[in-house]
Amino acid sequence: MKKRIITISREFGSGGRTIGKQVAAQLGIPCYDKELIEQLADETGLAKKYIEEQGEYAPSKHPFTYAFVGRSMNGMSIGDYLWNEQRRKILELAERESCVIVGRCADYILRERDDVLNVFVHAPKADRAKRIVELYGETDTEPFKRLQDKDKKRAVNYRYYTEQEWGCARNYHLTLDSSAFGIEGCVEMIIRAAE
Amino acid sequence: MKKRIITISREFGSGGRTIGKQVAAQLGIPCYDKELIEQLADETGLAKKYIEEQGEYAPSKHPFTYAFVGRSMNGMSIGDYLWNEQRRKILELAERESCVIVGRCADYILRERDDVLNVFVHAPKADRAKRIVELYGETDTEPFKRLQDKDKKRAVNYRYYTEQEWGCARNYHLTLDSSAFGIEGCVEMIIRAAE
Repeated sequence: MKKRIITISREFGSGGRTIGKQVAAQLGIPCYDKELIEQLADETGLAKKYIEEQGEYAPSKHPFTYAFVGRSMNGMSIGDYLWNEQRRKILELAERESCVIVGRCADYILRERDDVLNVFVHAPKADRAKRIVELYGETDTEPFKRLQDKDKKRAVNYRYYTEQEWGCARNYHLTLDSSAFGIEGCVEMIIRAAE
Repeated sequence: MKKRIITISREFGSGGRTIGKQVAAQLGIPCYDKELIEQLADETGLAKKYIEEQGEYAPSKHPFTYAFVGRSMNGMSIGDYLWNEQRRKILELAERESCVIVGRCADYILRERDDVLNVFVHAPKADRAKRIVELYGETDTEPFKRLQDKDKKRAVNYRYYTEQEWGCARNYHLTLDSSAFGIEGCVEMIIRAAE
């Protein structure tokens, strides 16, 4: 069956976002990543930065964070409110048009549709460390630690909302090591898989 | 880089073995699965049935099984002796020729080579249950229980010898849901990935 919607989950620094954009460009369909954040910011009134961080990262257990995240919105914590809004938006997009959606547990949110191709992109740590320094520059935190922090937060967020394991092959139709195939190789394989 | 060796790990009933055979046939290279067991039986004097079962399944924690498995061979338990012989055989095959190797932690055993493509094949439980009944017939144990038993044993064996998680996307260059792409679709994708 031809897949209308492609979700791309990715390890930080694996090139998953770039792959998603190129797949969408080649198929002539939109790619939702930053775009999703912008639309959600418009619709919820929450800050883009907040959505970008909290929409994919774990509800923190730090008591100080709770003081903020725990604020009520329609009887929910902001974290859960944002999850619900993201979920509603992703379901709406999938209903409306063919598209690529990067991150945000879209694979899980769309699990009841049969026109979705779920992809996970990963790469060895050394390659990802090199990539994030090239793309985002150096910071005070060394690259391996930055990878570990982001991956851990994504994994905890995914487990919290989906009760599944992030990066477990069974959750995806296709998983790819972007170092083995390169960005272009991955793009080609995903397009063929969707067809 | 072109990959000379393809390892295929697979959930029970996912069609991974069939896919491995077809990949090998299309590439004109040997596929080691039963063949590996036969060669090991010749070389070690162990029974084929024993190698088939113990070579991929967990060292059981049941004390009765220990009584047998725990017997010494060159100072090792038979389980560890078989692991070593399998490992030696797989390293030797990889050195000697292009081939497809199904199961037996070959992905881990060959991890230091850079001419190996590691693939994991899985499928939803319902499809695998249907497939094992078609292929192997009914037994007294209901299909879902048979799947669960075999998968669990393979996972425990993999963890025991590799200290990695079986079915975790990061351990493989490519993972495929055979229900999404079909046997032929998977064969085609693996061949393209190897090239």
